[in-house]
Order: sequence, then structure tokens, then C-alpha cells
Amino acid sequence: MSSLRSLYAKDGNRPEFQTNMNVDYVIHYKIPPESRTEAEANFTELIEALTKIGLATEVRNGADSSLLVFVKVASEKYLATQIYRERVQDWLYGVRATSPEKDVDKAFQDEPVTDAERLRLVYLLITKPKNDGGAGITPTVGQWKDVASIFPLHNHAFNRQWIKQWSSKYILDEKDLHHIRDKFGESVAFYFAFVQSYFSFLLFHAAFGFGAWIIFGQYSFFYAFMNSLWTVVFFEWWKKKEVDLAVQWGVRGVSRIQHPRTQFKWDHEAADPVTGEPVKIYSPTKRLKSQLLQIPFAFACLVVLGAIYLFCFSIEIFLSEVYNGPLKSYLVFTPTIILTGVLPVLSTILGNIAEKLTEAENYRTNDAHHAALVQKLFFINFLTSYIPLFLTAFVYMPFGNLLVPYLDIFRITAEKFSNDKAITTESFQINPDRLKKQTIYFTVTAQIVNLALEVIVPYVKRKAFKEVQSKISQKDATGKTSVADVPEEHAFLERVRNEAELDVYDVTTDYREMIVQFGYLSLFSVVWPLTPVSFLVNNWVELRSDAMKIAVSSQRPIPWRADSIGPWLNSLGFLSWLGSIVSSAIVFLFSNGAHGPDGEPWNISAWGLLFSILCSEHIYLALQYAVRHILSHFDSPGLQKERAERFSMRKQLLEESLGPDVTDRPVPPTVQSGEKITREALENEARRMSVSGAVGSPEYAFWQRQQGMDETIQIGRKLITQTALGNKTAKS
Amino acid sequence: MSSLRSLYAKDGNRPEFQTNMNVDYVIHYKIPPESRTEAEANFTELIEALTKIGLATEVRNGADSSLLVFVKVASEKYLATQIYRERVQDWLYGVRATSPEKDVDKAFQDEPVTDAERLRLVYLLITKPKNDGGAGITPTVGQWKDVASIFPLHNHAFNRQWIKQWSSKYILDEKDLHHIRDKFGESVAFYFAFVQSYFSFLLFHAAFGFGAWIIFGQYSFFYAFMNSLWTVVFFEWWKKKEVDLAVQWGVRGVSRIQHPRTQFKWDHEAADPVTGEPVKIYSPTKRLKSQLLQIPFAFACLVVLGAIYLFCFSIEIFLSEVYNGPLKSYLVFTPTIILTGVLPVLSTILGNIAEKLTEAENYRTNDAHHAALVQKLFFINFLTSYIPLFLTAFVYMPFGNLLVPYLDIFRITAEKFSNDKAITTESFQINPDRLKKQTIYFTVTAQIVNLALEVIVPYVKRKAFKEVQSKISQKDATGKTSVADVPEEHAFLERVRNEAELDVYDVTTDYREMIVQFGYLSLFSVVWPLTPVSFLVNNWVELRSDAMKIAVSSQRPIPWRADSIGPWLNSLGFLSWLGSIVSSAIVFLFSNGAHGPDGEPWNISAWGLLFSILCSEHIYLALQYAVRHILSHFDSPGLQKERAERFSMRKQLLEESLGPDVTDRPVPPTVQSGEKITREALENEARRMSVSGAVGSPEYAFWQRQQGMDETIQIGRKLITQTALGNKTAKS
Repeated sequence: MSSLRSLYAKDGNRPEFQTNMNVDYVIHYKIPPESRTEAEANFTELIEALTKIGLATEVRNGADSSLLVFVKVASEKYLATQIYRERVQDWLYGVRATSPEKDVDKAFQDEPVTDAERLRLVYLLITKPKNDGGAGITPTVGQWKDVASIFPLHNHAFNRQWIKQWSSKYILDEKDLHHIRDKFGESVAFYFAFVQSYFSFLLFHAAFGFGAWIIFGQYSFFYAFMNSLWTVVFFEWWKKKEVDLAVQWGVRGVSRIQHPRTQFKWDHEAADPVTGEPVKIYSPTKRLKSQLLQIPFAFACLVVLGAIYLFCFSIEIFLSEVYNGPLKSYLVFTPTIILTGVLPVLSTILGNIAEKLTEAENYRTNDAHHAALVQKLFFINFLTSYIPLFLTAFVYMPFGNLLVPYLDIFRITAEKFSNDKAITTESFQINPDRLKKQTIYFTVTAQIVNLALEVIVPYVKRKAFKEVQSKISQKDATGKTSVADVPEEHAFLERVRNEAELDVYDVTTDYREMIVQFGYLSLFSVVWPLTPVSFLVNNWVELRSDAMKIAVSSQRPIPWRADSIGPWLNSLGFLSWLGSIVSSAIVFLFSNGAHGPDGEPWNISAWGLLFSILCSEHIYLALQYAVRHILSHFDSPGLQKERAERFSMRKQLLEESLGPDVTDRPVPPTVQSGEKITREALENEARRMSVSGAVGSPEYAFWQRQQGMDETIQIGRKLITQTALGNKTAKS
Repeated sequence: MSSLRSLYAKDGNRPEFQTNMNVDYVIHYKIPPESRTEAEANFTELIEALTKIGLATEVRNGADSSLLVFVKVASEKYLATQIYRERVQDWLYGVRATSPEKDVDKAFQDEPVTDAERLRLVYLLITKPKNDGGAGITPTVGQWKDVASIFPLHNHAFNRQWIKQWSSKYILDEKDLHHIRDKFGESVAFYFAFVQSYFSFLLFHAAFGFGAWIIFGQYSFFYAFMNSLWTVVFFEWWKKKEVDLAVQWGVRGVSRIQHPRTQFKWDHEAADPVTGEPVKIYSPTKRLKSQLLQIPFAFACLVVLGAIYLFCFSIEIFLSEVYNGPLKSYLVFTPTIILTGVLPVLSTILGNIAEKLTEAENYRTNDAHHAALVQKLFFINFLTSYIPLFLTAFVYMPFGNLLVPYLDIFRITAEKFSNDKAITTESFQINPDRLKKQTIYFTVTAQIVNLALEVIVPYVKRKAFKEVQSKISQKDATGKTSVADVPEEHAFLERVRNEAELDVYDVTTDYREMIVQFGYLSLFSVVWPLTPVSFLVNNWVELRSDAMKIAVSSQRPIPWRADSIGPWLNSLGFLSWLGSIVSSAIVFLFSNGAHGPDGEPWNISAWGLLFSILCSEHIYLALQYAVRHILSHFDSPGLQKERAERFSMRKQLLEESLGPDVTDRPVPPTVQSGEKITREALENEARRMSVSGAVGSPEYAFWQRQQGMDETIQIGRKLITQTALGNKTAKS
């Protein structure tokens, strides 16, 4: 890992890592191998489009038949107005509670522009449609299919310090997250905030899990309850935390300001009934038709993945627990080999279909598209991750003895192939430790393998690319067409060429990993209470390795804003709820010695199972209600800040619209003396009455009987006295 | 019903119903029988307090040792500033989307002051604490315990037309509701809107129910499903409708502006950490302690009401289906007599305890207090309304044969008392129609009885009061202390004395009735699919009789604002959810002939029951999710209006803060020609660089290589050509 080494090594302070040459973005333009003239025309258009929106450009040679177009905002002042405009818009949409200072210079002094804010706006300038004031450059799509990517350059000085700091501290604090947010935007910051919160919560759960493992062992009802409680508290707490962070970062409700998808196809344009602006419309029934395709797709996923798992599972059981013939020790690995070979391919295929389907659903905004895609991906991941454990827990363990005779088909097949007329088989016994072993595999081994893959695969990829590249450059060196870099820029350009070849960081992948992990915890950790301990350790490393991934093996991400972890929140809630059901079913099935060595066909009390599921689900819902209620009473710094801001803004606006002394209440026209009020009231009354032509009306007469307060009081007292006397008379 | 008759009769146009003498409020002051001087002092203070806040007063003799203080706003201009202030405040709290016109006169022209708005503000003036700018007069509490009530006078012209219109049309439309809102405030209008919506939805359900009754009969699975679907659709639709109405009426989010409770007791005052304003604080742990009392209270309710019902139920079964001795035809009524005698008393007692408990919980705002009280009342109502049916469905019907032997205790008791040594008993048979009969009783008979009571009881009360009053006035006539009214005012004053004695209209009672009715529909209508038909008819009458109740037999209500049906919404959701469980259980238990005449001890398949409950609950949740999703795609006039308002306001504010030409995008500093941009960019660059002292730095050099767009394009094309050539060389 050359760049990693460089980050740490003494000579990491090499000049090419010290400056980004004031570059805002690099556009990686792949020269198409065929048509030179078309490429030139296209390139000219690119530069013209960029210049037209006020960006300065420089072009350099890239690696492997490509160009690097460096882009910089030509006028800082123009950018400043753009940023200010955006802040005002945020305020109008209710994203920020206070309007920005009217004095623009003071506004930027109060709230300096962060790297993320600047980069986001420049990116929007480059990619926004032309009639929206942007250059309309959409990488890899349509006219711009030769634009491979648009990416900002890493701030290596920051990255080096970031990695250094994080690897030497145990717990990350809010300040660390704020730094991430300033550099990489809220979207990435929310991921780290989520993992960090999850990690902190795991501290408790790991301690409890360890204790439970020692005291209660596996399949403990108490552990299942505490596990459910923990998922509820964590989920509800995170929902609050998320809002709090969004407020602190000034992005609450930012998901309402949605960016339209460039790929959106519309049927016709119509005027918005409300605003009168033209709106692109796509028939909802058409979309619904596409959406309905999800149902067969879901079935297909379930059938295909289910079949593969079931097949491998059957072979595995047959080989490991029934079969006793030749080559057993090798054959045992058959299912693992099948799964390792087939699953990744299948996942990729299904993932691609999911993407195509979402594409066909043709959403208007990026957020809607993303949410729909995430939903499908979650479903696929749910199946690939949890089917094996579901099979073991709810098919193999309870019904193993009933099913094994059917596995004879394998023996017959094997006999046919091996010509060995009698393959020996053992009598089948349910392996009571199978579920535990599998859980440990998924919660420990698989996590470690994943982590390793995340670090190693990109490294190998980069290495391989370097090899190819150096071969090409050698070839180039022999040819005469290679354009030599200016010597003082060479190191910098080499670095940029490197970054151009890195993967694009996709926070979705990282979220997916965490959510799947949370699922193991919620659904199956009752099988092995040490699960949270394993995850605790794993996530400590995960947080750092993800940081490393961004800093070293990915292009610097576009700093998008976000006000939550988005559609994953639903997945989290779903897994937490499902956990209450699955855990209780597992506890019910296995807690009273069902996994004993006798291996007898298992007699399930169906009503007991259903009852325990019903109970635990409602306990879960009640817990959720209670936790939500309790948490709603706590204040959070972000919400407090927002309240304070709104209060001051209200006061200010009130003063503006009602005059400065509005906080003093208007004085009612009271006059203490009876005569004065009479006169005044009379005059008012007379005026009003004369207007409505009612002097002398019964109403006028009614209000003239007692003129002023004193008379009313006098007559009232008289009436009281009379009543009192009357009472006495009546009594006597 | 004298006033009812007067509303319809030709001579209903009597002058006293034509005018309210411009009176805003009448304060009914009861003269305490003991201390005359104290009363006089108190009265003086009352008038002074009213005058001090700018109200004109007149005093007249009331009925039965009381005074009527007539109150009117002295200065219309002062009231106008109050109303304007409130509208601005609404805007600042986000209740209204647009700020009121800056020109006050135009503001009132655009949005005239409604009766409700005026009366609400005057009421607030009278009752608000003194340091908040009000007179601080709180009826029946503390210093003002002699103030029996503060009420506005009915607008009889409006009432007459209202009742006339409603009784002659089948369906109420939005305009009718708007009228209610303008006269009686949003709180009452929401009740009518809710019942009207419920009524409209019942049209479909009644049609379906009638069909289902003919085709499927009772205990139909299909009916249960459709019933559940209907409750879900209605509930979700109403939630949307509610928001829509709130927006149309300009009260969305008004529940956030909360009125502090006068009876709130605080431990200490502290400065709000946010606003710095003093806040009254009551220890949350103290409140929690009081709140925990709800648990034993709930248990007590359950035990007491459960025991009563169980007792009566046992007697009833014993008498009607086992006992065959003397006086059977009379004894059968014993349980009914017990229930009719005991239940209302018990309900009142429990209701009072609930009120005491809520009082002890000491909430800071009226809304919180009300919500807590409603929760308790709902629980009590839930028990009293549904226990009998629960007992029949889930105890008597399935387990009757097992339990009846225990009823022998009644026979033994009876034998002891009657000296008749052998009371004959029949052999017990479960009455399969019992559940249906009971359901019909609750959904038809009880509804009619309720309706009748609602109309008759107040009438009788009023009659009785009139008798007493006329006796007193006769007595007065004989005595000499009676103060004669001025003849031209006599009729008007008599009318006001009448209104002073009317009940205060409490919308809670009416809501409660509707929610309980909804519960029968959701929980038990599967027993008798004609239930919705009965409710349809009932609610047509109910709507009109409630209107009558307000117009004729109640004081005119204080026109409070509201943005929803408040805490009843939760009850509605709860009943809808519970309905899915109870219905499915009933269908499972009785659909396959369990109610056959064989009366054999009943063999319940527990797992089947649990499974059907589990299924139907999850079907319910899925339906809810789907309906919510679908409804979220529909637009509503209110939300459209709000969007339009927000849009225009945003545009306006944007123009105000960024200058009028902000809708035109700022023009980027692009220059087409290569030379010009070079110069400009150079100058900018040089300036910036010189400021940061970086001329001659590598960054400066980097951006100087290609000066302007044209050079970038030129060099880029050269690079493309070279690459293309290089490719060719490599290929050849």
C-alpha cells in the first residue's frame, strides 16, 4: 500500500502531498480509442461548458489514454454568492432556524465555508443541468460517456492526521465526527456517527453478553429479553441522536430539498397547480407497473438463493453426518466450495437486476431512487446472510430426523457414480452444536474474512493496476508519443493519476455491512451470547479500517449532505422487530434440552411456540412504546440549540413586523375614574352606533344604563344587598 | 323544549332572539348566601379587573340569588391589535404559512375576524393571568369561586338556520363545517367533521355489511377482513383529513401553542436555559410517582368492573338458563336492575377518581392534562362497554359447560333463602345466540337509549329548573326584594337567565360516545354484520341531535382552537388494531359451527387460535403499512393550499433578502473569448495570490500553463491526437 506507507513514513511529507494546487475538482476524461475528431469536439464542448459557468481549467495527460482536466472556481466572489444563496434557501426551506446575516461578509465570518460546503456546490455547478445554471456534465452518461469520473483531490495532510489520531484513541468524540463532516460531508459523517454510536452501545451489550454466557449459557430467555430491550433502546436512541446531529450540523430536513435525477425520463411537462412552474411528470400507473415487478423478483431471489442453500445444506449434512464412504474428508468441503464460487456471482447478478428494476421504476429524485434500491439490496442481503441460520434453526434442528431419509438420494447418486455398490452410511444424529457453530462462523470468522477482504482486495487491485500501468509506460517510453510532464509537476500529476484510478467510495456498502451485522445480533445472538463481544472488537477495527479505506484506497467522496442514515433506518427497525420473534422462537425450541444428545424426533408444541412468539412480539411493542415515551422526555443539545435559535428569530421577526416595543404588551385603554371612562366609552359607542345607524337602538340603551365602572359596581352592590336582605326575609 | 319550539315556531322571531345587545360574554356571578360585605368586595374587584383590561360592563339581576355581568370590549381598536398580534404570533410559530398583511386594515379586510376568533380572544383576555395581560378570572376556582360561569350568548338567528338546514339535508359538506368553525371554533368543528367523515365511510361499510349479512351470515372470515381493512382505511384517511382541515382552517400545529393550566402548582421557578425566560418547574420524579398510581387504578377498575359484570353475568345465566323455579320471569331482570343501578354510579366514581389522579399528576398545560384524563376515561369506558361481550365471547361460549356447575352456589343460596328445599334447575345448554343478541343490544338498543337520554335528560332538567325558578319568582313576587327588570329588557334578560342555567357543552363526552361506537364496530361487528347499518342510521340522527344539543340545551361553547381530534386519535388506532385480533379470534372460535345446538364441551385448538390471531394481526399491520403508503401519494386541497402559500412566501422573502432580481440567477463571470478571460482570470489570480503571498508558488505556476479556455482546448486536442497516434503505433 504505497500511499498508506507514504502517509506514515517520514518522507510522507513529500511536496506532492502538501498541496492540491488549488484544484477543486479533477475530471478524468477517457479518450475513446476510435474516433479522434469526435473526441476532440467533445473535449472542446466540455471545456467550453466549464468555462461558461465560471470555472478555470487546465488539462494534463492522464494515465492510459486519458486526460486530466483540472477545474477551479475562477471567481471566489461568484462562489460566495452561490454559497450565500444556498444558505438563504436552506433557511426558507426550514433547514436552518436562523436566516444568514444580511451582511454577506459578516455571514461568512460567522459561519466560515467548510471544505465540504465548497466542494458540494462546485460539484453541483458542474453537474446541474444547463437550464438550472450548471454545466450539465454527467459522468459516464449520454453525451458525457467519456467522462470517467469527477472527483476532488484528497487533503493528504488532513488524512494523515486523521488516521494517526483515530488509531491511537479508543473512543471517538463529537469533535472527530465534526471534522469528518467538514471534510467529507454529512453523508459520510452520519455513517461514522452511526457506527460509533453502535460501538458505544455494544460496550454495554458485550459486558452483559459475557456475563450471560457465563451464568446462563446459550438459549437463555433472560438474554433474549435483554437483547430485545437493547435493540429497542439503541434504535430509538439513534433516531433521536440522528435528529440531534442533523440539527447541530444544520442539515435537519435537508432531505426535503431533493436533487432531481438526471436519468429521469418524463412523459410530459405540466404546470405545477401550486407554483405554476413546469413540472416533469411520469405516469404513476406506469411506475406502479414497474414496481409490481418487485414481487416476482423477490420470489425469484427467495427461490434461487433458497434452493442453492438448501442444496448445499443437504449435501453437507449427508456428507458430514450420514455418509461414511471414501474421500469423506475431502468431500466435506464440496458445499463450501459451491457456495464460495456461486454466491458472490449470484449476489452480483441479483444486485444488477435490482439496479435495473430501480432504473425502470424511473424515480424523479436521487433520494427516491436510492431508497428503492436500498430496499431491494437489503432484501437480497437478508436472504444471503440469514437463510443458512434459518435453515439450521427451523428446519434441521427440529425436523432433521424426518428429513434425513430423503437425503438417501445422494447416496444412490454417489453409488451410481462411484461404482462402489455399497457406500457406507452412519445412522443419523442431529448435531446439537451445529447452530452454535454456524452462528460463531457468521459472527466471528465471516466478519474477520470480510474485514481482510476489504483491506486486501483493493490493495491487490491497485498493485495489479500499477503493474499494467508501468508496463504501459515502459511501452510508452519506447514509443515516441508519450508526453513528458513538466518536471516540477511530475510528482503531483503521478499522485493525481493514482487517485483517478481508485475506487469510488460508496457509503451504502459500509452501511449494508453494519446492518447485516446488527441483524445477526438481533436475530441469532441468543444462540451464542458472546456475539456482541465479537462485534465490539470487530467494529473497533472496522471504524478505523473504513477511515483508512476512504483516506487511502478510495477517491475523495463528493461531500453530499444528509439528515439521517436514510432508508437503512427502516431496515434497522425491521431487524429489531424480527429479532423479538426469531429469538423467542429459538429460545422456545432449544432452551429445554431439545438439543440433548438423545436425538429423538422432536415433539414441538405448536401452540407453545406461537404463544411465545405472540408474547415476545407484544412485549417488544410495549417496550418500544415505553422507551419511545421515556426518551421523548429527554432534551438534547441539538434540539436545545434549535429552540434557542428559533426563539431569538421569532423575537427578532416580531420586532421587525410589529415595531421594536412589541415585547411590551399594548396598553389597554383603561381609565380608572368612572367619569372618564364613561365619556370615552360613550364617545366610542356613539361613534360606532352612529356608523351603524343605531343610536337609540335597544343595544345602545342597554349599554347606557350603567355609565362606567363605578356605576356598575354601585348597582351591583345594591343588588347584592337586596338579595341578602331577600334571603333573610325568606328565612325569617 | 321551549327554546327548541321557539326556534321553529313563527314567533321564534321574538326580539330577544334577534339581538345579543353586543354582549361578548356574560359572567354569571352567584351571590354567596353568607357574607354580604365579602361578596360586595369581591364583586367590586371583579368589575375593576374587567375594566382594567379594557372591557365595558353592565350588571343585571340574575335568577336565584345571582348577578349577570355583561361584558363587552370597550375599544374595538384595542381588540383589533390583540387579534393582529395573535395572527402574527401564529405565523411565527408556523401555524400559518403566510405572515399577515403589514397594513393592519388591509389584513382585516383580507381575513375578516370571525365570531370564534373574537370570542376566543375576549375569553382569553378575561381568564389569562394578570401578569400576562388578562383579568385572571378563573370561574369556580380560588378567589373567583363565586363566578359560576363565563359564557358567550347564543346567536339564535344562526342556530335556527343551522338546525333547519341540517335537518333537511342528507350529507353535510365542507361549507357546513366551515360555518360551525366560524361560530363555535375549531374544537367543535373537528368533532362534527370527524362524525361526518365517519358517517360517510359508514355508507360503504353499511352496504357491504348488508351484503355480507345476506351472503355470508355471521362469523364470516371475509367480513372480518373487510372490516379490518375498512377501519384501517378510515383511520389512515382521517389522519390525513385532519391535517388537511387544520391547514384549511389555519390551525395546523396550533397544539404547540399551549395554554398553561391555572391550577398548575410548581416547586420553583428557573430560567429557561434557552430563552432565559422564567419557567415554572415541577419535579418530574414527583409527577412520575403520581403517574405510577395509574397502574393500581387500572387494576382496581378492572377488578371492580370485572367483578360486577361477572357477578351479574353469572346470576343471569343461572336464572335464565339453569334456574327453573318460582318467579323466574321476574328474577331474570335482577342482573339488569343491578347493572342499571350500580354501573352509572360506579362510572361516575371512577371518573372522579380519574380526574383526581390527573389533577395530582399536575400537568403544566391544559392539553397535557386533557390528554392524560382522556386516556383514563377511555380505559374506564373500554371496560364498561366491552367487558360483557368479552365475557360472552371468550368465557361463556367456549367454557360455559365447564363453568356452569360452579353456578350451583346460587341455587344453594336461593334454597336457603326461599325455604323451598328443591329449586328445580334445567340442564344447562349454551345459548348459541347469546353473543349475537348481546351485540344487537349494544349496537342498536343501547344506542337508541343513549340518544334518547341525551335529548330527554337535559329537557327534564331544564323543566325541573324552570319549576323551581318559577316557584322562587313567585315567592319573590310575594316578597318585596325582587328587582323588576326594565320592561324593554325583560325578555332578553329572561333569555340570558335561561342560558346561564344550561349545561356547559363538553365535546369530550360526544367524542367518547363515537369512539366507543367505533370500538363495537371494530371489535364485534363480525358477530352481526348489520352493525354498520345500525350505526349509519344512528349517526345521521346523532349529528343532528348533537347540533341541537349545542344550539338548544347547552351554553354556547367557548370557541377553542384545535388541530386534531386530539388524544382520541390514539384510542381510535388502538381499537382498530385490537379489532384485528378480537375479530379473528371470534371468527376462529365460532365460524365452524361451534355454536351448534349440541352444546358439547368445546375443544379449542389453541395453536389454531393463536395462529389465526398472529396471522390477522400481521395482515392488519401489513394493510396499515400499505394503506399509509398509498394515501401518502394523494394530494389534498389543504396541503396544496399550504404549499402554494409557502411557495409564494419563500419567493417574497427571497426577494426581500437578496434583492428583487433574485429569481434571475446571478450571472457567472464567464467571458467567451480566450484573451479576455485570460486577462481577467490573471488579474483575479494575481490579486488573490499576492494577497496570500503566493505569486511564483507552484500553485501559481500550475494554473498559468494554459491561459484561458482556448489554450486548454488547444492543448487538450493535441494530447488527444498524440494518444490516438500512439494507439495506432502500438497497434501496428
